[in-house]
Amino acid sequence: MEKKKVVLAYSGGLDTSVILKWLANKGFEVIAYVADVGQQEDFEAIRDKALATGASKVYVEDLKEELVTGYIYHALKANAVYEGKYLLGTSIARPIIAKRHIEIAKKEGTVYVAHGATGKGNDQVRFELAFYALMPEVKIIAPWKDPEWLSEFEGRSQMIAYAEKYTIPVKASTKKPYSEDENLLHISHEAGILEDPALACPSDVFSHTVNPWDAPDETTILAIEFEDGIPTRVTNENDGTVVDTPLELFTYMNKIGHDNAVGRVDMVENRYVGIKSRGVYETPGGTILWFAHRDLEGICMDKEVMHLRDSLIPKFAELIYNGYWFSPEFDFLSAAINKSQELITGVAKVAIYKGNMISAGVSSPYSLYNEKLGSMEVSGGYQPVDCKGFININGIRLQAHHYWLKAKEME
Amino acid sequence: MEKKKVVLAYSGGLDTSVILKWLANKGFEVIAYVADVGQQEDFEAIRDKALATGASKVYVEDLKEELVTGYIYHALKANAVYEGKYLLGTSIARPIIAKRHIEIAKKEGTVYVAHGATGKGNDQVRFELAFYALMPEVKIIAPWKDPEWLSEFEGRSQMIAYAEKYTIPVKASTKKPYSEDENLLHISHEAGILEDPALACPSDVFSHTVNPWDAPDETTILAIEFEDGIPTRVTNENDGTVVDTPLELFTYMNKIGHDNAVGRVDMVENRYVGIKSRGVYETPGGTILWFAHRDLEGICMDKEVMHLRDSLIPKFAELIYNGYWFSPEFDFLSAAINKSQELITGVAKVAIYKGNMISAGVSSPYSLYNEKLGSMEVSGGYQPVDCKGFININGIRLQAHHYWLKAKEME
Amino acid sequence: MEKKKVVLAYSGGLDTSVILKWLANKGFEVIAYVADVGQQEDFEAIRDKALATGASKVYVEDLKEELVTGYIYHALKANAVYEGKYLLGTSIARPIIAKRHIEIAKKEGTVYVAHGATGKGNDQVRFELAFYALMPEVKIIAPWKDPEWLSEFEGRSQMIAYAEKYTIPVKASTKKPYSEDENLLHISHEAGILEDPALACPSDVFSHTVNPWDAPDETTILAIEFEDGIPTRVTNENDGTVVDTPLELFTYMNKIGHDNAVGRVDMVENRYVGIKSRGVYETPGGTILWFAHRDLEGICMDKEVMHLRDSLIPKFAELIYNGYWFSPEFDFLSAAINKSQELITGVAKVAIYKGNMISAGVSSPYSLYNEKLGSMEVSGGYQPVDCKGFININGIRLQAHHYWLKAKEME
Amino acid sequence: MEKKKVVLAYSGGLDTSVILKWLANKGFEVIAYVADVGQQEDFEAIRDKALATGASKVYVEDLKEELVTGYIYHALKANAVYEGKYLLGTSIARPIIAKRHIEIAKKEGTVYVAHGATGKGNDQVRFELAFYALMPEVKIIAPWKDPEWLSEFEGRSQMIAYAEKYTIPVKASTKKPYSEDENLLHISHEAGILEDPALACPSDVFSHTVNPWDAPDETTILAIEFEDGIPTRVTNENDGTVVDTPLELFTYMNKIGHDNAVGRVDMVENRYVGIKSRGVYETPGGTILWFAHRDLEGICMDKEVMHLRDSLIPKFAELIYNGYWFSPEFDFLSAAINKSQELITGVAKVAIYKGNMISAGVSSPYSLYNEKLGSMEVSGGYQPVDCKGFININGIRLQAHHYWLKAKEME
Repeated sequence: MEKKKVVLAYSGGLDTSVILKWLANKGFEVIAYVADVGQQEDFEAIRDKALATGASKVYVEDLKEELVTGYIYHALKANAVYEGKYLLGTSIARPIIAKRHIEIAKKEGTVYVAHGATGKGNDQVRFELAFYALMPEVKIIAPWKDPEWLSEFEGRSQMIAYAEKYTIPVKASTKKPYSEDENLLHISHEAGILEDPALACPSDVFSHTVNPWDAPDETTILAIEFEDGIPTRVTNENDGTVVDTPLELFTYMNKIGHDNAVGRVDMVENRYVGIKSRGVYETPGGTILWFAHRDLEGICMDKEVMHLRDSLIPKFAELIYNGYWFSPEFDFLSAAINKSQELITGVAKVAIYKGNMISAGVSSPYSLYNEKLGSMEVSGGYQPVDCKGFININGIRLQAHHYWLKAKEME
Repeated sequence: MEKKKVVLAYSGGLDTSVILKWLANKGFEVIAYVADVGQQEDFEAIRDKALATGASKVYVEDLKEELVTGYIYHALKANAVYEGKYLLGTSIARPIIAKRHIEIAKKEGTVYVAHGATGKGNDQVRFELAFYALMPEVKIIAPWKDPEWLSEFEGRSQMIAYAEKYTIPVKASTKKPYSEDENLLHISHEAGILEDPALACPSDVFSHTVNPWDAPDETTILAIEFEDGIPTRVTNENDGTVVDTPLELFTYMNKIGHDNAVGRVDMVENRYVGIKSRGVYETPGGTILWFAHRDLEGICMDKEVMHLRDSLIPKFAELIYNGYWFSPEFDFLSAAINKSQELITGVAKVAIYKGNMISAGVSSPYSLYNEKLGSMEVSGGYQPVDCKGFININGIRLQAHHYWLKAKEME
Repeated sequence: MEKKKVVLAYSGGLDTSVILKWLANKGFEVIAYVADVGQQEDFEAIRDKALATGASKVYVEDLKEELVTGYIYHALKANAVYEGKYLLGTSIARPIIAKRHIEIAKKEGTVYVAHGATGKGNDQVRFELAFYALMPEVKIIAPWKDPEWLSEFEGRSQMIAYAEKYTIPVKASTKKPYSEDENLLHISHEAGILEDPALACPSDVFSHTVNPWDAPDETTILAIEFEDGIPTRVTNENDGTVVDTPLELFTYMNKIGHDNAVGRVDMVENRYVGIKSRGVYETPGGTILWFAHRDLEGICMDKEVMHLRDSLIPKFAELIYNGYWFSPEFDFLSAAINKSQELITGVAKVAIYKGNMISAGVSSPYSLYNEKLGSMEVSGGYQPVDCKGFININGIRLQAHHYWLKAKEME
Repeated sequence: MEKKKVVLAYSGGLDTSVILKWLANKGFEVIAYVADVGQQEDFEAIRDKALATGASKVYVEDLKEELVTGYIYHALKANAVYEGKYLLGTSIARPIIAKRHIEIAKKEGTVYVAHGATGKGNDQVRFELAFYALMPEVKIIAPWKDPEWLSEFEGRSQMIAYAEKYTIPVKASTKKPYSEDENLLHISHEAGILEDPALACPSDVFSHTVNPWDAPDETTILAIEFEDGIPTRVTNENDGTVVDTPLELFTYMNKIGHDNAVGRVDMVENRYVGIKSRGVYETPGGTILWFAHRDLEGICMDKEVMHLRDSLIPKFAELIYNGYWFSPEFDFLSAAINKSQELITGVAKVAIYKGNMISAGVSSPYSLYNEKLGSMEVSGGYQPVDCKGFININGIRLQAHHYWLKAKEME
């Protein structure tokens, strides 16, 4: 009988290596899938380890450019931010990873996919909801929610024992006392020593940004150009550097952010699965782009569109955070968000200095800012008497309401 | 015949001095009202000037503490921010100024009130909507929308001539090349040389904050205590300073913010009267309090309340910005906001360094953060198998939707 | 050893009778709790059956008046309607039933509660979420989600066998070919022969309303008085009947609605647990009250409050539907809703005729309707020239937006 | 010197006839524009009268089909309803009338447009905002806000005198004691004898629907087919009539609605210009289509899309009501609404009887209703144990919140 194929999201770490072998031992033909979303890894070593551990085939997929243009920039268009602080660095990488996962499963002709996300976190939800959306007939193997696996592997020690039994190499290197997730947009740090939210995050946790006090005592001025809400070109006005392709641009922004200590966030957030969790994030380039994008919208986005859009940001961000990228409600909001960016074209300048982002001028061919109108000294498209009518009409219902409120109080 | 009384909001500047005399010359008994909302002024000199210019009586009213406890802290509870950046420093001071204005009118037995706000800005709307709400029978004299006044005073030069004619002292001091508005929460700078949004704001415009590069190379750690969403006590962990009365606390926060370069915003915003305007703001203490309040909410605010509240912030801020503090819709939202703060009690620590605010630990007697649950390493109140059910149920409709979407595409 | 007590929600039907005996056989002391929310039942017979089946004690609780004043009228204040059609008749009764359930558990000194709701419906969620909220330490026994029960009872036939074995009386009466849930607000009909949404609901399903074609060919005019959004008095203008206590009033409204064919809804709705379900509802009195309440709001609710409130109705209704009556987010919205009803006082007249509700006049001591202002023939509080200013100011941004849109298209 | 051209929206009534002559007397070349949006009129007589009164040219434009497909059906997609009752019959016709008005002005090479809407109503706002959007450089002549006109014409009698002076025919026919506005979607009745909202509307006011008691004692069953949210075909199951072109379909729906007394609304609504106004509306065909569309969405619209969309209906309807059809915020919402209708395809049957609309079955090729899942008797895509996990996870935060709430109360 032919073996069933399963496509496993493989990182090269202990967990997914043990899962790979465990699946193989259960009779599956295991195809390892490694997504390169910008994390620092030796992908060839991971490929070799997968094969050595029993994978029949390995896919190492470079998803970096699509991550930037298809995912990060879509969130940027909406100024998406979760719970007032988090730029969704981990959440945004999940749908693209899951999409490629399913594409490989289809190519390999199987409905079985497996992942090693834990059974209490957000990622399992994000992966599996995307799987269900992109392949309704999918069969998901999630060992950390599988009673058989859970009874066999209570913790790390059983996995190490299993690895040793099957001669899977276990990194001797000292594991960090907290967990991390890294991609082009950000790196997250959580759990372990970071679990007590009353304690400040130690400085040595950070890796994608220098400390503000270690950043150069110098201001860097960036001119960031956008077309229809998308960054297209960045000029460093200090040294004349110009970058204008998506991956180069985003990588450059990360470097500037890193060097100048921009983009750290430390927060307690609400996970989709009902509990609060402390996350420490570094989002160097994204933080500057989000800031510049909002500044540019200031001069070329219509007021009512901005106010409506802003009231929908929490929902839009929640959908990304919760794993609903591939959902009809995300498509519904995205249609509006895309519409809102039609005239968001122009340049926002940002001065960067030791963790600070300072607005340094905005301009747009579609500027709605009219110096003549906006100035309080020069008359423009409407007259003061127009304001009188405007106020009178807007004030009528306030007069009526308070008249009755007072009358009622005096009854 | 007895003269009609009018209560005039008086600042001591050229405009309201000329208005005072103009109203007196039109036969009004003018009562000057000076609101102390924390601006740097010699209030006794203003009182004397009002009397010298023809006021029959002068009210100098200290509104500072009520501004903090009744207005700023109410906005803080909602984390109110306008168009993603502006903490509403000018807007928040307007309703309390208008309220006292009407109280004085009632005490003086008149329905006439006058103000010197320009005819194209937000303040006229804020003042007048508050007047209409608090005294539906009010009669408003707004010279800058009055055709008679406008034909007499085309600009500053006619006012200076009028002042000289009536021996009203005109400050010889060089006027700043832009306009400012100051109170406890912030100072704004706009118009004049700031009108071109493509040009960065010059450093010498700022007065309530030092430049980041001029701030001390030292981190200041503040422990900020809140009860039901309201700051009650701040401890400077560097030097042991403790402040715990509203005005002292807020003033201290302003000093810390000032010294450490916190709270600058430069933006193009949408005025209520339909045009865009560039505003440069300094909100030193408020910016830190807003940041700390959000951090504290992280551990003790319910997720769904936070997400709902966050979606209403743009509307809540818009109402403050547009001048609807005294309106039924503001009361409607405020009832919910107040409810949301019932358990927002605890301490948020913030480290301040050269313009940076760094979360440095949060704790609450009502913490909803549970280390056992939140950790990915320890099992808690629910089991991984629960997540399976959670995901399965949430995934059903995604499967169905995409099934049909695909079917339709293939038709 | 003392037996563990469990409080079981008991209906007298086959399911909960078998559950009662099953729990007793497992060693529990079973206390039966019967909630009278207005359903047509012989409560003494149910009490006797519970005792005969093995209950150690029976609570028959009359919750009708509290259901009206504390639950139905709160939803009415919000004009709560789910998915545009459903007045939430079943959903609203669940929290009060659960609240009394927990009160009895506390009185009996136990943390065990049991219910017989099915494992795929909404009610299990509503009951259990309320239990968790009102008694965080609760232990819930839900047989229809219990693997042991499910393996023993695959369907109705095993339950009948079990009942016969333990001499539990099984009603010989022919069961209806669909399921129903009844309380003061409504009766629902679903499942069974109603499952195919392509088929119209047969007339003989309805029990709380006559068919429109069977209703009298006569118009009944009701004058419904409200105070702060709550119905306080109804006068039938045809025959002079007056009702003015909550239960009498609501019961009378049900009778009028029943006799005149008002309040039927037939819809496919979205259950919280991710699937669509067809429900047929009869809500005779509630439907008229909802209609009259909205009519009265027309003259005495502020415009902006109404528009904001209306945008929150779907969320408010969703929370009731999903079982979040006892939740912080429901409290958050309720605070606003309560505020919105402060001046909703007056009389709404409704003419009822064969299923039609016809507005027949509204009046209020706090009417915001001003004949002088509202008429197009008479000038009032503002002048036509005010409208010019109002339109000019509101039009500025439209001019600017379309100017650029056109310019961009022509590029 | 060449005369300036002005395009005047002309109805043939007294007001616009006097305006036409008045404009001509002021030296304008007046081009009359008559929009046929389905009102009952003798358009050739109007054309003749315009020419006789001094128009240099007359455009009689048939806008009926575009009104249905481009405007009414767009509102239908959103289930747009204003303040819970009004289907926006007048509001929806305004943008198309204004659009053609501007097209004619462009064709005629002028920027002058004139209309006869009153200075206190909604229509002036709707027309003028559309003008500003579609032709930013427009110059609007609105006599009822023009001081010169207002001083000359205080009321009807001065207009009659003016008409007689210039031999403009004045209809001898008795004017109705209230005003009306009619188009394909509805007829409105307001002002005059309808001004007192405490008085029921007399039966003889209605013209587009029979009284419920005068409708036939017979049920008519319609099968209404939709594609992507748009009605495409209606079959009368009683007599086999089939209609499937837009105008024929909509006209047929109006006839069925009229004959069966469907679509009356009587309400006090909030005008954009700050006052409340009583409106009586008849919307026979539209009311049935709105009902059927919602019913169809029940089986084929995703839950989360529906709930989000429903929360945006009040805003969407407000924009139409206030005159913002041609605005960036309307485009923003419309993009989402259009997206939401992608799978709203199928048949909704409605039984019509004496003012009642009764759901009579829905079906769709993209039905999300699954009998197996939806039934409470048959197990389907998820298991009861899944619900346990779902509830446990959703309940966690309720437990925590109420735990602290209770703890705080006991302090």
